[in-house]
Amino acid sequence: MSATRPSLARRSICEFLGTGLLVAAVVGSGIMAERLAGGSAALALLANTLATGAALLALILTFAPISGAHLNPVVTLAMAFRRYMSWREVPIYIGAQFAGGLLGTAVAHVMFGCAWYSLSRHHRSGSAQLFNESVATFGLLCVIWGCMQVHSALATPVAVASYVVAAYWFTASTSFANPAVTLARSVTDTFTGIRPLDVPAFIVAQMIGASLGTLLFAWLGQNESSA
Amino acid sequence: MSATRPSLARRSICEFLGTGLLVAAVVGSGIMAERLAGGSAALALLANTLATGAALLALILTFAPISGAHLNPVVTLAMAFRRYMSWREVPIYIGAQFAGGLLGTAVAHVMFGCAWYSLSRHHRSGSAQLFNESVATFGLLCVIWGCMQVHSALATPVAVASYVVAAYWFTASTSFANPAVTLARSVTDTFTGIRPLDVPAFIVAQMIGASLGTLLFAWLGQNESSA
Amino acid sequence: MSATRPSLARRSICEFLGTGLLVAAVVGSGIMAERLAGGSAALALLANTLATGAALLALILTFAPISGAHLNPVVTLAMAFRRYMSWREVPIYIGAQFAGGLLGTAVAHVMFGCAWYSLSRHHRSGSAQLFNESVATFGLLCVIWGCMQVHSALATPVAVASYVVAAYWFTASTSFANPAVTLARSVTDTFTGIRPLDVPAFIVAQMIGASLGTLLFAWLGQNESSA
Amino acid sequence: MSATRPSLARRSICEFLGTGLLVAAVVGSGIMAERLAGGSAALALLANTLATGAALLALILTFAPISGAHLNPVVTLAMAFRRYMSWREVPIYIGAQFAGGLLGTAVAHVMFGCAWYSLSRHHRSGSAQLFNESVATFGLLCVIWGCMQVHSALATPVAVASYVVAAYWFTASTSFANPAVTLARSVTDTFTGIRPLDVPAFIVAQMIGASLGTLLFAWLGQNESSA
Repeated sequence: MSATRPSLARRSICEFLGTGLLVAAVVGSGIMAERLAGGSAALALLANTLATGAALLALILTFAPISGAHLNPVVTLAMAFRRYMSWREVPIYIGAQFAGGLLGTAVAHVMFGCAWYSLSRHHRSGSAQLFNESVATFGLLCVIWGCMQVHSALATPVAVASYVVAAYWFTASTSFANPAVTLARSVTDTFTGIRPLDVPAFIVAQMIGASLGTLLFAWLGQNESSA
Repeated sequence: MSATRPSLARRSICEFLGTGLLVAAVVGSGIMAERLAGGSAALALLANTLATGAALLALILTFAPISGAHLNPVVTLAMAFRRYMSWREVPIYIGAQFAGGLLGTAVAHVMFGCAWYSLSRHHRSGSAQLFNESVATFGLLCVIWGCMQVHSALATPVAVASYVVAAYWFTASTSFANPAVTLARSVTDTFTGIRPLDVPAFIVAQMIGASLGTLLFAWLGQNESSA
Repeated sequence: MSATRPSLARRSICEFLGTGLLVAAVVGSGIMAERLAGGSAALALLANTLATGAALLALILTFAPISGAHLNPVVTLAMAFRRYMSWREVPIYIGAQFAGGLLGTAVAHVMFGCAWYSLSRHHRSGSAQLFNESVATFGLLCVIWGCMQVHSALATPVAVASYVVAAYWFTASTSFANPAVTLARSVTDTFTGIRPLDVPAFIVAQMIGASLGTLLFAWLGQNESSA
Repeated sequence: MSATRPSLARRSICEFLGTGLLVAAVVGSGIMAERLAGGSAALALLANTLATGAALLALILTFAPISGAHLNPVVTLAMAFRRYMSWREVPIYIGAQFAGGLLGTAVAHVMFGCAWYSLSRHHRSGSAQLFNESVATFGLLCVIWGCMQVHSALATPVAVASYVVAAYWFTASTSFANPAVTLARSVTDTFTGIRPLDVPAFIVAQMIGASLGTLLFAWLGQNESSA
């Protein structure tokens, strides 16, 4: 946006902080929702959904002017693939996102008086779960690429947050769709956790979905001779 | 928006994909909501409403720049009637929407570990239900035509999504208001289903409502001599 | 917005239709919510709130470009008072709003298979209730006047809908804040009804609140010499 | 926004009124939610969250063009620190916010037929609670400073309201994040109350968080030579 782009250090700190606050919102609201919902899984997921969507909307609006507010390694990879950022910055961005996510879980735990971390025992595996993650991440990347053509600073934040709100409910995996968030959710044995053993397959499924969405919109956006 | 309009093939794929993701969100969130709600119909419909509205908002923002994001055969017909698109493209758009919708149901079923399709046994018939669908679709077309005059890329996505959120609750039919979604919901024997036998009357009622809304706004927008 | 303003007939029809759809949304969603909520008043009001806010957002966006989307007699009076419309148009606007509101209740009743109308037996009286309506309408007019200075077509629709969502919960009367809606809700013996006998005092209280809000913002917006 | 800035008197009245309506929404919706929720803490907090977020969105949009809509002493201090307002206006702004907040509680009490005020007996203390308030206020200030770079009149109102919606759920303290609201909530012995004895530590924690967020974004926004 500005004439001079912020330094990589400043942008990485935004990715670190944004992903951290996002994970703190996901994990923290999951703990709060589980405590208050009195056993109603629908009510707990509703509160968790609301908090996650609202946090995403606020955080993307906040950090987009500085770092682009990827907050998600597959988004950073997709941006580099389509040359919206240089490949040499990718490891720094992704490292910041993973580190921020882990810190976010720890912060949520401390806020709710839990130990810094706890390994999740929540099984999330099987081919159906992986198909869910692929669909969820495919849709997420469609939304991101599609909204880049809308002339409004609110379009992408609103659409991404809305998409994730929907995906929490329309996928059986509740749509992680983000490797940094997935890893961060493996170290919390609470409502939003995922067993560490199930993380690698989730990340692979997310990368497949993200690739398909990115390739599709690369083709949709190509110059064409016939109309 | 762009100088060169995307090809019909690209635009139809967007209608196919957009309607597919919309139906996957409607049907999938219905399955999730029913499973988690523990018998509370209000909680299940609330979650289904939230997911549907959020999906519509994200998907219209995503696909509007390419295909216009009709995602609904009666919208495509109305656009052709008022010459916003050529009649020869209508069958392709509508075919893509119906096919996408059916795929959406199948994807939702697979995500939740169900068979690809199952015929709904949910009775939705009688003149009251049809009156509901006419009112719902009339209102939807009013919203679409009215918002075309608002100078903001967010107006139509926000208004259409909001309208559908309201209509899920203020109509006794929960407002299908979309022939492609109606057909797609006939092949799911879950929360959001409709008996195949009831589909044709629903579609007729939707077309009546859409026609009235379109004619009204055509008249409202006419040049006039007296003020 | 446009060079030639739509005729009074066209604008009045928008006020008639907009208020009608608004009341249909309020009353209809109240019936649906009460039927599904299984006795949980919080859940019923939550659904009613969501549907009302979403309907307001969609309807103001839809009708604002033609009629200004007042949908509320006290808003029309306030606009005339501050010379945003001519006094001679006021009776037509207000008549259209009251008539539309009554039709809206009838349409909601027919959609849910009830008789066209039924007199409410829901007591809403006493000085506390009237204080509530004054506060609610005062706040509504503050929001409307304040947002007229924001340069975005979405500001007023979003702010008014959000305000009403909040006011449904932060006032003990659930914030009618609209004489046309108040009258229309007197002929429905359902969740959202109000006893006809209680209507006049509600309207007086609303007019007091609206007057205070309008006078305050007239003063706030005045030219001033000292800063 | 306008060529001539409104007088300090006019701006202070907006801060007074805006904070008052905000607190009335927070406290009033808490009373309503507790009465209707039938013991479900999740449902009560969900309604309280919805009303608070919606009120914030409406009130910031309403008062931003005149006073900037701080509605929060730590925001006013942060603005003065970064020279967006003069220090000599700070005491007037903050005084108006505290006075408005106290009036807001009284108005909510009268609307619901309670005594003007009642001292809260709700314990909210301990280092975990204070860490929560620091994190919550740190995040709030990040959102405010980040969104100042987004070119949309809706960005800050939407982001701040969304952030607070999320923070109600992802912090164990339900995120007061505002000294004027904290004090105002000490004089209501209802759902949203806080024991007067716990107020000072909350305010200190909020100021620490606000300082960190403000310093961070001051550094992020600095001119820099290397990229």
